[in-house]
Amino acid sequence: MPIAVDGMGGDLGPGILVEGAIHAAREKGVEIILVGHEERLGDQLERQGGRDLPISIHPASQVVEMHESPAEAMRKKKDSSIQVSFNLVKNGLADGVVSCGNSGATLATAMFTLGRIKGVRPAICTLMPTLKDPMLLIDVGANVDCKPLHLLQFGIMGSVYYSESQRINRPAVGLMSIGEENSKGNQQVKKAFDLLSSSDLNFVGNVEGRDLFRGDVNVIVCDGFVGNICLKLSEGLGEAVLSMLRTEVRGSVLATIGYNLARSAFRRFRKRVDYAEYGGAPLLGINGVALICHGSSTPKAVKNAIISARSLVDIDLASKLADSLSRRQDLLRLV
Amino acid sequence: MPIAVDGMGGDLGPGILVEGAIHAAREKGVEIILVGHEERLGDQLERQGGRDLPISIHPASQVVEMHESPAEAMRKKKDSSIQVSFNLVKNGLADGVVSCGNSGATLATAMFTLGRIKGVRPAICTLMPTLKDPMLLIDVGANVDCKPLHLLQFGIMGSVYYSESQRINRPAVGLMSIGEENSKGNQQVKKAFDLLSSSDLNFVGNVEGRDLFRGDVNVIVCDGFVGNICLKLSEGLGEAVLSMLRTEVRGSVLATIGYNLARSAFRRFRKRVDYAEYGGAPLLGINGVALICHGSSTPKAVKNAIISARSLVDIDLASKLADSLSRRQDLLRLV
Repeated sequence: MPIAVDGMGGDLGPGILVEGAIHAAREKGVEIILVGHEERLGDQLERQGGRDLPISIHPASQVVEMHESPAEAMRKKKDSSIQVSFNLVKNGLADGVVSCGNSGATLATAMFTLGRIKGVRPAICTLMPTLKDPMLLIDVGANVDCKPLHLLQFGIMGSVYYSESQRINRPAVGLMSIGEENSKGNQQVKKAFDLLSSSDLNFVGNVEGRDLFRGDVNVIVCDGFVGNICLKLSEGLGEAVLSMLRTEVRGSVLATIGYNLARSAFRRFRKRVDYAEYGGAPLLGINGVALICHGSSTPKAVKNAIISARSLVDIDLASKLADSLSRRQDLLRLV
Repeated sequence: MPIAVDGMGGDLGPGILVEGAIHAAREKGVEIILVGHEERLGDQLERQGGRDLPISIHPASQVVEMHESPAEAMRKKKDSSIQVSFNLVKNGLADGVVSCGNSGATLATAMFTLGRIKGVRPAICTLMPTLKDPMLLIDVGANVDCKPLHLLQFGIMGSVYYSESQRINRPAVGLMSIGEENSKGNQQVKKAFDLLSSSDLNFVGNVEGRDLFRGDVNVIVCDGFVGNICLKLSEGLGEAVLSMLRTEVRGSVLATIGYNLARSAFRRFRKRVDYAEYGGAPLLGINGVALICHGSSTPKAVKNAIISARSLVDIDLASKLADSLSRRQDLLRLV
């Protein structure tokens, strides 16, 4: 079955989304349904030469704006491209959803329409580059207020996703905190430390901010408030250092060459930090597959997200997560 | 009166501390009491030619180790260099304390020995470099579990400290969150937003991680858990990007020159992010002046911290903080 792509989401218009879809269909043969304004999407598909590919269009008459309240959007826009995309999955007409639109609305619609794995708080995770293996940060924004138990759930889901996507058995799971000792951290984190310690995960203890990018820990667990701040700080710091460097090199030819070199390395780094660039951030813990992308995703990012969604469906990630959580039912006290 | 310097704290031994003290005394004429092992400190002072300077030595027979529990250290080591330093202030023999030792123990000893400003949660703040004016992050580790009211207190204290130290009237105060709208953030931050909005501070709203280093906001308020993670992440990310760059330039002479240039700019940046380098992090909200430095502080960092302590005493920062908090007593519901 095809992957549903919210054809109206994102800051850059449907052209980018159609371009990404065309690449995914052409390069990997992914079947796609573009959801949204039929004529606009059809025009784009025609103009970009995608008519011969396995891409169809499904109408949706409304668009959720980027800054609209998720609750209001869900109540008032029953025929939005986001809602219709998830309806397709619910009704067995699509396998998963990719959206570059309002991420809060995507999250809420996914949970409401597809449902969550029993007793679980769905979380958004993102792979980040490090000096060694990529590091998975979970949660990066779905849950701003978490209980210790939710952090344990994130550890389990992150571990499953990491081993499936990176082919590493029993990945090292760490807990974001402010010191290595288990006595360090706030109340939430200290209790989560105990829960993670007594689990069967490969839990390696607390991880400090300065060790995040060393790459010794594969999965780093935190609440969505802390995770989102870390994600955006990483993005912003790269840019700030780059600007400071620019000031340093003014007036020297050699220095400018050095700066340009540094700049391109930085840009690569920033793109990797920006999860949209390499395939969107999966929402783990729902009954299905949904990938959330940045509003300013490039066609390449859209393509990668569609290919990721396809592969997460193919490996049946949602069932693997549900199995893994249900095996630990006692520990999780699922209701 | 002199500044008391914990002569035994830090990872690098008393030699570094004595060297820093000598520079502060020589360059700015600061009077100093070195607290700790009399003979070792005396030897260092002799060897480094500091005998003619206004530096005296006060004995303390015990040392708090870097990883010792603060509570246990306070209970068992009544004659530690940290405790004796604060006793000197309490007994009117010194004006303030600088310590590179166990920061948890320094914090606890400061609060217990000097007392807090009535009803206030003391917080550690640190100035960080940005693209414009320096930015003050408060709290960076003293309070891992905060109520919204505490965040308001941090905003008030940070505002006073910033305007005194940077000579900027009514600095812009922001709240660290995950979106600009006041609806974004966790429960703690949403309530703090309301409190800060209804205060007379120059509150400019939420600040996201990616905007931290732009320098548009002077004082950024967060709890100590989030602040400490941000501080250490900033440190670690610089190093990680540097290592990634090193890999990129291998094999090219020109690129290596460029890399070396970038590296020195980075090192400067990292030093500025590392608060120890420019004078220690003040503990705001206690009845007195205390500066907390990194364990690995250089002599220059120690010197700067001593000079800062002297100047915070001279401007009577502690009273200014107390006045500012007491003027807002209704808002703060001080007990």
